[in-house]
Amino acid sequence: MNIDGKPWRTIWLEPDGGPGGDAVGVIDQTLLPHQFTTRSLRSCQEAAEAIRTMVVRGAPLIGVTGAYGLMLALQLDPSDAALAAAFEQLNATRPTAINLRWALERVRAKVQPLPPAERAEAAKAEAAAIADEDVAMCEAIGDHGLALFQQLAARKPGATLQVLTHCNAGWLATVDWGTALAPIYKAHRAGLPIHVWVDETRPRNQGASLTAYELGKEGVPHTVIVDNAGGHLMQHGLVDAVIVGTDRTTRRGDVCNKIGTYLKALAARDNGVPFYVALPASTIDWTIDDGVAEIPIEARNAEEVTQIQGRISTGSAAGEIAQVQLSPNGSPGFNPAFDVTPARLVTGLITERGVAEASEAGLRELYGRG
Amino acid sequence: MNIDGKPWRTIWLEPDGGPGGDAVGVIDQTLLPHQFTTRSLRSCQEAAEAIRTMVVRGAPLIGVTGAYGLMLALQLDPSDAALAAAFEQLNATRPTAINLRWALERVRAKVQPLPPAERAEAAKAEAAAIADEDVAMCEAIGDHGLALFQQLAARKPGATLQVLTHCNAGWLATVDWGTALAPIYKAHRAGLPIHVWVDETRPRNQGASLTAYELGKEGVPHTVIVDNAGGHLMQHGLVDAVIVGTDRTTRRGDVCNKIGTYLKALAARDNGVPFYVALPASTIDWTIDDGVAEIPIEARNAEEVTQIQGRISTGSAAGEIAQVQLSPNGSPGFNPAFDVTPARLVTGLITERGVAEASEAGLRELYGRG
Repeated sequence: MNIDGKPWRTIWLEPDGGPGGDAVGVIDQTLLPHQFTTRSLRSCQEAAEAIRTMVVRGAPLIGVTGAYGLMLALQLDPSDAALAAAFEQLNATRPTAINLRWALERVRAKVQPLPPAERAEAAKAEAAAIADEDVAMCEAIGDHGLALFQQLAARKPGATLQVLTHCNAGWLATVDWGTALAPIYKAHRAGLPIHVWVDETRPRNQGASLTAYELGKEGVPHTVIVDNAGGHLMQHGLVDAVIVGTDRTTRRGDVCNKIGTYLKALAARDNGVPFYVALPASTIDWTIDDGVAEIPIEARNAEEVTQIQGRISTGSAAGEIAQVQLSPNGSPGFNPAFDVTPARLVTGLITERGVAEASEAGLRELYGRG
Repeated sequence: MNIDGKPWRTIWLEPDGGPGGDAVGVIDQTLLPHQFTTRSLRSCQEAAEAIRTMVVRGAPLIGVTGAYGLMLALQLDPSDAALAAAFEQLNATRPTAINLRWALERVRAKVQPLPPAERAEAAKAEAAAIADEDVAMCEAIGDHGLALFQQLAARKPGATLQVLTHCNAGWLATVDWGTALAPIYKAHRAGLPIHVWVDETRPRNQGASLTAYELGKEGVPHTVIVDNAGGHLMQHGLVDAVIVGTDRTTRRGDVCNKIGTYLKALAARDNGVPFYVALPASTIDWTIDDGVAEIPIEARNAEEVTQIQGRISTGSAAGEIAQVQLSPNGSPGFNPAFDVTPARLVTGLITERGVAEASEAGLRELYGRG
């Protein structure tokens, strides 16, 4: 999508940019929305660090970064041992998203049978394929979601469609287009009047910092709200639909997404607002049924709760990007990063193959497993 | 309650401290938890400003500050015109809390019939009476809530009672003890093992900044969480009860409280967790039935959403209290300050007269209206 009129992807190859061959370019998402900077990942270690510190984040983008991380490792050392070590190092960075493991396994399965000398090139091709497929899947999600939005808009002719989203499931979370935001971009480009309520999404504020940034750069009307406000807006008829992404979807349609998603799903249900989840097939974990009981929830550093990053508005350091402490010295914090929304609260799953009911039957109908 | 071992109230008289006679001392709550500072309000104008800018906040404390504001006005000019102007000035500061109007009307009713020369003294006595009654009511709420907590604790002998609260309905929101936190202080002093999950309560973070501060100063174990986390904790059995305050309670038991309260009530209901609201009678608005439809919700400055205040942790200005910007330039914010939790989601109303069902019948039984 566009930044200041120029089209970008979130991740790209920088040929001959690294010690083993290529480097991988990414947008440093920790400095947005205040500063747009790119970084070159030159080793598997740097790729793992970029995932862990959330320089790159979003389940689909984490998967692609992991795939390229294997390529970076194999360009330096294509041995079985190096492959296994790189796989473990990358897989350990974030425990909740399923795409990461999926992408790593896909690349490993491709390169493992090959002679070491051919592995790096094969990993590069596979990572590029995953990236391109991700773009195509996101665009297809956008088209299926657009059709839903057009149905909702038809109920209130002439009025602006009001959509609420949580966290960032936009193009910055994927390679391009996004998952939950893809239908919004499609709608905006199709001329459908649309306005987005953007949950700021504490603790890391991916809504206020990334979703608002993306939407602003594409010219989509939006308003930032605190995570507490969505229920009130729904009570007062100000939300026509909620749409979010997911880091892992169980086979019965439970959805693990950024902490707080469950609260919005409850409010949507209480107010008769449709609640949609947008996802590529790679987020489906067919091995898991009950998301609340079975999905491991990453507990991140408590400092993400007790502190926050922003650009200083006042005083001697105005303009600097800084951490500020919010709570008293000595008050601990707890920071679960995700929660699980049970399938019973989900109106529909918008996938690259169409819209499914949030149930095992619904998912099987699209994906033919069982 | 205690700050560093010394007992405080949130508001007190400073005899002969003002141009018309007395001044009114308050704790400046906008600088907590980073800095403990008191301020002297020397005029009705300063009292109104203190309410508007949230130097003082919390429905009961706003009411007492309003009452003392009338005293400050009348000490300078006891005329009918001055009384009417002061009433309007104070009443316009915050539209949602009902205690403010209630306290202002109570003082006005007392002084209006008197000769002007006697009004200031009568206002002083009435404001002091409202303050003392507030302390007694809060302590009674604490005792009734303690009994409930003891019942809940009896279900899990030896284990720590896990209570979640939203915003600050502690002693800083009242004159002393607090409403929602009074039962917690009573339980802690009675030796009941208790731990409090403190919602940070964006946008103004009264949980992280005030509730955590209060609890820390009293030695009550607590953990700060983002507003998004409560549902996840309840799904995993980590919350035994939710307890919050209220700025206005309708006659049928709908509860208007800090934005986000409704979302926690929905999660409590979905997980079978009891949801209690603590309130003195002064927050009940007998003229209103349907809270969602009838209570005006204050929309505050959008900068409270797009910015946040904290103490800088890093860089050249470390240690300074500053505003930081969170969202991109050009992304607007919207900032409704309260939401309404329908009575159907409320397990019980803990009042100074005992625990009522959240219904008109329940409230009438305690207060004998009808």
